[in-house]
Amino acid sequence: MQLVLPSGLSAAAFDRALQQFRSIVGEDWVFATDHDRDSYLDHFGFDQAAHVGSAAVAPQTTEEVQAIVRIANEHKIPLWPISRGKNFGYGSAAPVMSGSIVLDMSRMKKIKMDIENGTVLLEPGVGFYDLFDYVEENDIPYWISPPGNAWGSVVGNALDRGVGYTPYGDHAARLCGMEVVLPDGDLVRTGMGAMTDSPSWNMHPYGFGPGWDQMFIQSNFGIVTKAGMWLMPKPETIVSLDMELDRADDLGWAIDTLAPMRRSGLLQQSPSIGNWLRAAAVLTNRTDWYDGLGALPDSVIDAIRAQFGLGWWSVNLRFYGYEEVTTAMAEKVKSIFASRTSYEMKQGIWRDGDPRELQPFAGVPITFPLQNASWHGGRGAHVGFSPALPQSGDAALAQFRRTFDRYNEFGMDYHGSFALAERHITNVNQVLFNKDDPDMVDRVDRFFRSLVNDASEQGYGEYRAHIEYMDLIADTYDFNNHALRRLNERIKDTLDPNGVLSPGKSGIWPANYQNERG
Amino acid sequence: MQLVLPSGLSAAAFDRALQQFRSIVGEDWVFATDHDRDSYLDHFGFDQAAHVGSAAVAPQTTEEVQAIVRIANEHKIPLWPISRGKNFGYGSAAPVMSGSIVLDMSRMKKIKMDIENGTVLLEPGVGFYDLFDYVEENDIPYWISPPGNAWGSVVGNALDRGVGYTPYGDHAARLCGMEVVLPDGDLVRTGMGAMTDSPSWNMHPYGFGPGWDQMFIQSNFGIVTKAGMWLMPKPETIVSLDMELDRADDLGWAIDTLAPMRRSGLLQQSPSIGNWLRAAAVLTNRTDWYDGLGALPDSVIDAIRAQFGLGWWSVNLRFYGYEEVTTAMAEKVKSIFASRTSYEMKQGIWRDGDPRELQPFAGVPITFPLQNASWHGGRGAHVGFSPALPQSGDAALAQFRRTFDRYNEFGMDYHGSFALAERHITNVNQVLFNKDDPDMVDRVDRFFRSLVNDASEQGYGEYRAHIEYMDLIADTYDFNNHALRRLNERIKDTLDPNGVLSPGKSGIWPANYQNERG
Repeated sequence: MQLVLPSGLSAAAFDRALQQFRSIVGEDWVFATDHDRDSYLDHFGFDQAAHVGSAAVAPQTTEEVQAIVRIANEHKIPLWPISRGKNFGYGSAAPVMSGSIVLDMSRMKKIKMDIENGTVLLEPGVGFYDLFDYVEENDIPYWISPPGNAWGSVVGNALDRGVGYTPYGDHAARLCGMEVVLPDGDLVRTGMGAMTDSPSWNMHPYGFGPGWDQMFIQSNFGIVTKAGMWLMPKPETIVSLDMELDRADDLGWAIDTLAPMRRSGLLQQSPSIGNWLRAAAVLTNRTDWYDGLGALPDSVIDAIRAQFGLGWWSVNLRFYGYEEVTTAMAEKVKSIFASRTSYEMKQGIWRDGDPRELQPFAGVPITFPLQNASWHGGRGAHVGFSPALPQSGDAALAQFRRTFDRYNEFGMDYHGSFALAERHITNVNQVLFNKDDPDMVDRVDRFFRSLVNDASEQGYGEYRAHIEYMDLIADTYDFNNHALRRLNERIKDTLDPNGVLSPGKSGIWPANYQNERG
Repeated sequence: MQLVLPSGLSAAAFDRALQQFRSIVGEDWVFATDHDRDSYLDHFGFDQAAHVGSAAVAPQTTEEVQAIVRIANEHKIPLWPISRGKNFGYGSAAPVMSGSIVLDMSRMKKIKMDIENGTVLLEPGVGFYDLFDYVEENDIPYWISPPGNAWGSVVGNALDRGVGYTPYGDHAARLCGMEVVLPDGDLVRTGMGAMTDSPSWNMHPYGFGPGWDQMFIQSNFGIVTKAGMWLMPKPETIVSLDMELDRADDLGWAIDTLAPMRRSGLLQQSPSIGNWLRAAAVLTNRTDWYDGLGALPDSVIDAIRAQFGLGWWSVNLRFYGYEEVTTAMAEKVKSIFASRTSYEMKQGIWRDGDPRELQPFAGVPITFPLQNASWHGGRGAHVGFSPALPQSGDAALAQFRRTFDRYNEFGMDYHGSFALAERHITNVNQVLFNKDDPDMVDRVDRFFRSLVNDASEQGYGEYRAHIEYMDLIADTYDFNNHALRRLNERIKDTLDPNGVLSPGKSGIWPANYQNERG
């Protein structure tokens, strides 16, 4: 991609800034060629040209991040910090606002583990594979909680409220204490880290006074250069219960059966109820099944289900801990289900010492689900649509039907799941498409906007948004004429008067770029 | 108490403000006599005269709170919002800065329960007894999580990071979505509440973008007028395991045995290991045992333990849920302990339908532990000292010995407990004293300061502070020359340019009262 500069920035100032960056991080770690810019695009998005960084700079230390931020203020150049830039379906490494300089922290890879307490202090460049290797090589009795595709950063994923499949799957909730470079270059540590050399930094989640950690999540108020996280003690066993639900309408009673178990803690992790396309899109391509236009007909759905032995929905439950306890939990769950359905629950058990299952459930990072981007052929792409719903079978079923009809209307293949968090459902839709098909790209955009509109009419908000749609989503959070946006932007302008940090992130725009709001 | 006005405020402006308040809330709900001021003092503190509100105003609605805040800005009068003002050991209803007008929200008592999802939207005036009554009278299958003394506000307790004894004992962590009046009178709803009429307001804990909830905790950034909380599903059983530890040094191995169980979730709640004075101070007075000066001698400690059948420490574990599961958990815990000690574990079981135990463990509010304030005779008083420690037996034992020596040095009776949260220990010290004894009052102040100093040398910070010591505690959070304070006070000055909201709360002072910092 050719160079695009942010409005109001001269080429001379940009060049001077790059020169200063080079003096900080070294010649090798400033990237500003057309080819460099290409590598920081959103390769899975559908309008790459709308989100082009002007350059990238890759520091290795917190001090370098501070120095870069100060230079950015000097020239009023916007930065777009990324951890590893793998935010699949939500924008990858690309900035909301073209011309931003990507601040690439993938070289910052320090891991500091407290084995006794199972806490780890991580830099943003540490990937799930890095942490997995570290834990395994050092025989540390804790497990990581990888997301479905584990190519990204552990900290970056948590900062975007990414989720996993173990009892530690709400990654943002397992953050404990951060080191943050503020937009003016000042350095703050949150929670107990605000006390010099506190041994409790990554143990007590709040410290004294207001709790800042969640304020640096999905925001542009600071650059997280270190974050404490809690790891899950290695369980003695994992008991598994897997069930296939034959009919689409089974979603309703299944949710009403699972939700009380989730609330009471009988289910420790967030089960995800997903449809037949989950497996098919990873293991096959659409042309293996169907060449027609429009959404897949029922006959094809039946064929896919038969091939992989799937229900309309699949439910996978996992219980972690001592065998006496996990077995008792699973038996209780089976007995509750037995009173409501004759569907079979397949039970299994993994015991410490058995080979690890290559699954996020088992704390093992995998990336093969990325294959689903290729479902339609061409250059595969993907955008995530994920509203939060109440835990009600009726609400979930209505949301499914409404959404399913929209998929059909726009000729898209349904790829949805309903994950039961402790008190809400996240309805994750992975909208797969071929970005070499201009008609499909156009349809996906209109489809996505109709999904957002449908959801917001129900009062359902997305928990996370693609960079292209951050303003659209933020617009739906409209209570008291957008009071939350007013509050966020007051804080933004106080902490970042030059608007140098991630303008537009989560729909939060600094004063100097208000005209860029989409 | 006689009227004290904040520096810079004229009596005429004060009177005008009160008149305006009366027009908002009615004549009956503005309190400004000497007697009124007395009723908002910290009756359990030791320097009441240092923290005297000038008046109180008691609104009944959010709109009234907004109107009051706007009037306070007009006259630049500081407000000190309280929920019910029962913050035992931390300042009761009294403000940090004398002359502040207490904003008393104890009339705001609305309860909105979502029975299906077990979430409740509460106003600050709702007390634990109110909520308990509401749940019981409506036969709602959820339990509340009361603190040790349950006379206070449910929301107020959570906003001060108060704790309880059930699996929902980290009350701040069970908050989900708030309505907040900002210092300029604007009204914001956090999380999913930022979407108009979202049904997920009190279910999804974050919403979109930065998460604000924890920012309104222990802070002076806004007045929480409604807060969503999660309640615990009523368990089928509670299995109890109680153990008495004979020697003070048993604390070390007990913590090292319990901590891994707490981390793994085998223990669902935070067990508190407390000493012999817990029971004695509630059920008897010191003069029943001893008339001498100085800390209680060993012979008296032995007599107390013999009378109540106590160890040096007591440990109480509780398991909540289906009988098959709670029993399996308790058996596992017993077998782990059996490998390390010959102390007996007394086991019990409560089943749904049995009479409820009158204990916070069982979700039942009680207040009789308040009796402990009378331990020394005279007008009883109390101050809490509660540093957060790593979960290490060695660290806990060293902290105990260091603190115990200080109790002896200052002639105070040891009243300490070690509560195992998920990853840290809160070492709660209830410093009981007689405020009619000037020598004791003087000793307590010096004692408290030495405890804070000792703890901070270890890097241990208090999780909560009495209004008298908020600056002292905030001073110990000193990383990068008090970077967190700089950040907090930038936010404070942005949101509250007139400094009208709780100046000095948690050591956060607005620009116009910087000279008041203690």
